[in-house]
Amino acid sequence: MEVSLSEAAAWLLQQQDIVILCHQSPDGDTLGSGSALCRALRSLGKRAQVLCGDPIGRRFQFLFDGLEEQQFVPKAVVSVDIADEQLLGGLREVYGGKIELCIDHHPSNTHYAQRYFVNPKASATCEIIYELLPLLGVQPDIATATDLYTGIATDTGCFQYINVTPHTFRVAAQLLELGVPAPQINHAMFATKSRARLQLEREALNTIEYFHHNEIAVVTLTRKMVQESGAEDADTDGIASIPRSIEGVHIGVTIKEKADDLVKVSLRAPQPYNASEICAKFGGGGHPGAAGCAISCGVEEAKKQLVAVISTYLESL
Amino acid sequence: MEVSLSEAAAWLLQQQDIVILCHQSPDGDTLGSGSALCRALRSLGKRAQVLCGDPIGRRFQFLFDGLEEQQFVPKAVVSVDIADEQLLGGLREVYGGKIELCIDHHPSNTHYAQRYFVNPKASATCEIIYELLPLLGVQPDIATATDLYTGIATDTGCFQYINVTPHTFRVAAQLLELGVPAPQINHAMFATKSRARLQLEREALNTIEYFHHNEIAVVTLTRKMVQESGAEDADTDGIASIPRSIEGVHIGVTIKEKADDLVKVSLRAPQPYNASEICAKFGGGGHPGAAGCAISCGVEEAKKQLVAVISTYLESL
Repeated sequence: MEVSLSEAAAWLLQQQDIVILCHQSPDGDTLGSGSALCRALRSLGKRAQVLCGDPIGRRFQFLFDGLEEQQFVPKAVVSVDIADEQLLGGLREVYGGKIELCIDHHPSNTHYAQRYFVNPKASATCEIIYELLPLLGVQPDIATATDLYTGIATDTGCFQYINVTPHTFRVAAQLLELGVPAPQINHAMFATKSRARLQLEREALNTIEYFHHNEIAVVTLTRKMVQESGAEDADTDGIASIPRSIEGVHIGVTIKEKADDLVKVSLRAPQPYNASEICAKFGGGGHPGAAGCAISCGVEEAKKQLVAVISTYLESL
Repeated sequence: MEVSLSEAAAWLLQQQDIVILCHQSPDGDTLGSGSALCRALRSLGKRAQVLCGDPIGRRFQFLFDGLEEQQFVPKAVVSVDIADEQLLGGLREVYGGKIELCIDHHPSNTHYAQRYFVNPKASATCEIIYELLPLLGVQPDIATATDLYTGIATDTGCFQYINVTPHTFRVAAQLLELGVPAPQINHAMFATKSRARLQLEREALNTIEYFHHNEIAVVTLTRKMVQESGAEDADTDGIASIPRSIEGVHIGVTIKEKADDLVKVSLRAPQPYNASEICAKFGGGGHPGAAGCAISCGVEEAKKQLVAVISTYLESL
């Protein structure tokens, strides 16, 4: 059932012992939404806990500063920034089919929850949580504002993408006024690379291949390359924006080898191209500008399949 | 003489046949300020022309869309975003000592103009020009808004740097509402790289050297590397942010070989380090976070001198 944000707030106010679920391969928006909502609920005297099926990377640990773990039997289950139950990952077995409230901004949201508030015009789920706080009667403290700023900044590529609206900028202005240390966050999120990441980038630049009149650019990261660079999984995320950044490229593809017969694929596409539409053909999804999927085969076979499907897609336009 | 922004506006309203000077190696802020002010003055029925000592790169041509060249003998001389007359470059011979109004946001401004309005709290000179327009009685059109957005976005690294204030975000919100095609501008300014640029980046990554307990990282771009990559001068600008982006690096140095005995140096530094202070020792200047200088020597000698001066600086803190 679709609910308004006020109805979502009213429902939350009636709950106790709430778990907040984040999506697998967690990013700044799902974690920032989770931690901000958790802080808000705790400030109301409720017990609340953020859960994620995957470990939370070192670079996002600060979002949970001061949020001690609480042990309780969940009485209410909320998901944030999760478009589909599949994205629960390891949490699916326990919480699949049991989510009572979903707050999300993905247009592809599959309405799996008992009640859902989905606003695809919000740049980030954190932008929605910011609107939710006054409805809960909560004035965000600096930690909550920091969580929310991080989600908005990371989901907009630091205010770079098409999802940024005048409202996004105004929310950012207000979060800055609450004392968010934005330059430090931006530096950590966007401007800092480990030496390992830099080495991986150099390797990635060496693998670029062009297809379909240079409109498709493909970067390949083998397990060996990742291992030898010493890069963490988070380091490999930013690599996905490289092929898409090349002048004249319509679809940027990054293929990450996960096992002998499993690859994870990141697609990036500028308007009017739709990466999500392409990934859907492989059982994946996401946004028009950025989407992903997994393919059960080796790197070369995946490349062949992807180039074929994307070429057909480009010719169909 | 220091003037208020209202006084600057009142003075401008009295002028005719105005040249607006931009700094050498022009960036989005000096050009966006120039073109926006030029449009505003022309909308008031005045003749106005933007001048720059260096050619305007291909990526900034759109800032001048619809601004036909006007021929006239200048009766008034204005500079925008120029901290020092030295930065007039090739325009210095004609306009040095003759600038009647300077509008700038650099704290290092040397107050060379007959009247100056300098606001170091503005993220960009374009943020000041945005405030100036209503004082001139001008409502910005979409082209003017686009010029201003571009200057603010480029000078803040797309809202990433420490110079971003709540006011910056609010100005950006208003510019977006005027119809600025922000995603396209951001894509062109921040997310698009020529293949030549990517190759240059790979070359640059191969030259990284670390000094002073890895707190100084130096990238060297020789003329040969730039030539062989086919990169334009504008392509080399972004390279300067690479050494500074490495975890643990306090001062990022990029040395560009210009001639056998001339290098241009770009310094980048996170807080609390001050790149401008270091560049001043070589007769250069800029902001604490980003500064530059020229040194009359070869690449290796420049590296030696820079590492020595920066090491002394770091030890003095």
